[in-house]
Amino acid sequence: MAKRSIPDIVIGRLPVYLRALNFLIAEGRQITSSQELGDRLGISSAQIRKDLSHFGEFGKQGTGYDIVFLYEQLSAILKVNRMWDVALVGAGNLGKAIADYPGFAGKGFRISAIFDTDPTKIGKIVGVHDATVLDVQALGPTIQERGIVIGIIATPAVDAQAVARTMIDAGVKSILNYAPITLTVPTGVRVQYIDPVVGLQRMTYYL
Amino acid sequence: MAKRSIPDIVIGRLPVYLRALNFLIAEGRQITSSQELGDRLGISSAQIRKDLSHFGEFGKQGTGYDIVFLYEQLSAILKVNRMWDVALVGAGNLGKAIADYPGFAGKGFRISAIFDTDPTKIGKIVGVHDATVLDVQALGPTIQERGIVIGIIATPAVDAQAVARTMIDAGVKSILNYAPITLTVPTGVRVQYIDPVVGLQRMTYYL
Repeated sequence: MAKRSIPDIVIGRLPVYLRALNFLIAEGRQITSSQELGDRLGISSAQIRKDLSHFGEFGKQGTGYDIVFLYEQLSAILKVNRMWDVALVGAGNLGKAIADYPGFAGKGFRISAIFDTDPTKIGKIVGVHDATVLDVQALGPTIQERGIVIGIIATPAVDAQAVARTMIDAGVKSILNYAPITLTVPTGVRVQYIDPVVGLQRMTYYL
Repeated sequence: MAKRSIPDIVIGRLPVYLRALNFLIAEGRQITSSQELGDRLGISSAQIRKDLSHFGEFGKQGTGYDIVFLYEQLSAILKVNRMWDVALVGAGNLGKAIADYPGFAGKGFRISAIFDTDPTKIGKIVGVHDATVLDVQALGPTIQERGIVIGIIATPAVDAQAVARTMIDAGVKSILNYAPITLTVPTGVRVQYIDPVVGLQRMTYYL
């Protein structure tokens, strides 16, 4: 299948393109080029054209890309032209910040269930969607009932693996992990890590 | 110069290798291979060998890599075998979570100055290093006095560009930005973005 042959690293760049296109839309722009996108992102224009060519023809030679069209096409390829419910575990400072994050709006995700172990947090209303913090005991059943396949872990490191296991056993296939620990997950489950250390260490080389 | 010829994308993978090595050390392991690292990280072993070959010979054919040695070498290459002071702007839920993040320990960074505009936050003690939240008016002078070259922005999107400008004017060369906005920065300043949307969108393709 053609789809299987697209390298993960190409798929991994599409959200970055989507993000840049979104900013161009916000700026009121209509047409862009692989050169402009490349300059903004620090990626070569040839790389961008090569990445996009895996999915078809999005621009015409010499006229560039229609920004909204390309945005919609990439959104469809990444399946974010729909709304995914997301289960978040951890309602501390980090979990609350994630639930409050305005950047999710219009990007395909809604944090619709939030869990914690702390009795003082359970029952509180948090986040932009006014979700009630539930006891983490309800994590598995809630994921199953609502057919949730995406989870975010914002717990202390010591709790993250057990939370991941509960999520996966209940049907989660994609986990965004903020805890500073590498998760062990079965084949077919994907994990992305949010780690400020990696971001900072990517820049110190140049200092 | 050889150093300049190393692609950014290679430098960008070194912190990911460092992170994996750190977990191997925590597991009490002593020797690893490009194959094992690759399996853990979803990167081909050939890619890992090629990346490391830019910097010298770290392993012997057939015997693998000494984990601590490789960790120390990569730390030195990335210049994180020392302590960098970091200025953090934003002491809301996100800023507090960053200041409390235990994952910075031993990785080369110390959040030693924290700023906010909110009078109810200024003067409070936050984070693992018990930093006092300062008025954001003190941001530029503090960066200059302490020679800080790394900043983290955890403000609302609307404030991020002005904060970046103040940081850069005072001497910051590397910015980790959590605000959902692309920053405009002069040549010579690097920005890394922490965006949960990018992480989530990297996984939905496979759902």
